[in-house]
Amino acid sequence: MTGVSEGEESVTLGLLKNKMAEFAKERDWERYHSPRNLLLALVGEVGELSEIFQWKGEVPKGLPDWKEEEKQHLGEELSDVLLYLVRLSDMCGIDLGKAALRKVELNALKYPINLCKCNNNNGSETL
Amino acid sequence: MTGVSEGEESVTLGLLKNKMAEFAKERDWERYHSPRNLLLALVGEVGELSEIFQWKGEVPKGLPDWKEEEKQHLGEELSDVLLYLVRLSDMCGIDLGKAALRKVELNALKYPINLCKCNNNNGSETL
Amino acid sequence: MTGVSEGEESVTLGLLKNKMAEFAKERDWERYHSPRNLLLALVGEVGELSEIFQWKGEVPKGLPDWKEEEKQHLGEELSDVLLYLVRLSDMCGIDLGKAALRKVELNALKYPINLCKCNNNNGSETL
Amino acid sequence: MTGVSEGEESVTLGLLKNKMAEFAKERDWERYHSPRNLLLALVGEVGELSEIFQWKGEVPKGLPDWKEEEKQHLGEELSDVLLYLVRLSDMCGIDLGKAALRKVELNALKYPINLCKCNNNNGSETL
Repeated sequence: MTGVSEGEESVTLGLLKNKMAEFAKERDWERYHSPRNLLLALVGEVGELSEIFQWKGEVPKGLPDWKEEEKQHLGEELSDVLLYLVRLSDMCGIDLGKAALRKVELNALKYPINLCKCNNNNGSETL
Repeated sequence: MTGVSEGEESVTLGLLKNKMAEFAKERDWERYHSPRNLLLALVGEVGELSEIFQWKGEVPKGLPDWKEEEKQHLGEELSDVLLYLVRLSDMCGIDLGKAALRKVELNALKYPINLCKCNNNNGSETL
Repeated sequence: MTGVSEGEESVTLGLLKNKMAEFAKERDWERYHSPRNLLLALVGEVGELSEIFQWKGEVPKGLPDWKEEEKQHLGEELSDVLLYLVRLSDMCGIDLGKAALRKVELNALKYPINLCKCNNNNGSETL
Repeated sequence: MTGVSEGEESVTLGLLKNKMAEFAKERDWERYHSPRNLLLALVGEVGELSEIFQWKGEVPKGLPDWKEEEKQHLGEELSDVLLYLVRLSDMCGIDLGKAALRKVELNALKYPINLCKCNNNNGSETL
């Protein structure tokens, strides 16, 4: 069983993938988990995440003024996005850990360090 | 350096968090990484992910008919969503690994196994 | 006052813009209606719209099997997206009607009729 | 033909619906315009809209510091969202004009003027 002390340092994408697979299997929900169903569910969760931030104007890093219950709620919505993303990747046959490491390396090639430092006035770069 | 053999079994959320932090720091991009900026960047990536699926109609699990380059592209867009999600969580002071494990447990309480099996005809459940 | 018989044939974008402006003013909500606040609210509504479709698999045009209350709910979520889009455009100083007509003409130039008919096997076009 | 002087005061949702229907028919694209395909295309456009705002931090109403070409681009992305929303509504058999007027009235009942004025300190209301 998952100990409460576990966190980002030990939680792998594979662990979450297995937990989601087991969760769906136990409830006989595998038949609902087609790629596009999961994608729309992900969009739904991104919407709920956005609702948390929608009327707040700019918020500083670390959310210093947020109540504990607001941060808890935020953690839940971030998690929902993550869990559907992991499940979607699994249902598409994509190794998300491998893909993410590769993407970080591609990004490093696309945005070389020195060039980015010189060109920092626009900030319009996107992955 | 990241070996090509690493994948979801070994990639932790903490590893990705550290890579994103280093990436931003090296390019002096930390000033752009406010919570709402990152959230909108995440929404942008979810849009790119959706574009991959938009004209395809329903697609079967495992994407059997997709070309290798399409799956590669899909892996990149899934990764972009993940990387911004990890970075957003970090900038909000949320331990995403801990939050995700907790959310899986909350979901298990919300959707007990036997009840879900009986009630499977509607499929309208949402996290 | 709005008659119940009015519909898409008579409802202009300007009418909706004025109704949203009045609505915000009466409630002293104008201060919340910054462009990025409204954009995130729009994303939230797109999420709610997606939730309606998320577990359904492909659905045929006209939604022949949907209950009247489901279609009513769908109309409400489509409207929420529209209303925030109209309000966002207004707060950005964009004439959405003019922009939309212009975009239709740009699309016609981008996708000439005969070329599209020949090239219909991929369906990967996007606006 | 559409005159350049037309704008939000005269552009009805029905006009846009008809233009989108004609556009799809001429290109033989009707077969791609299933509800969920259009929904995902809409999400894609919302992503492009978000990209415009993603690295900007808070922006003031009216976008006083934006270049003309940036506002033009913004108008195009707002329009893409609108056009897919109109097309999606049509393919679902929903009269979007009628639904939007009804939703404005429902919102007025849900958020009575005086109550909202008293309760304005949280700003967490959502449609």
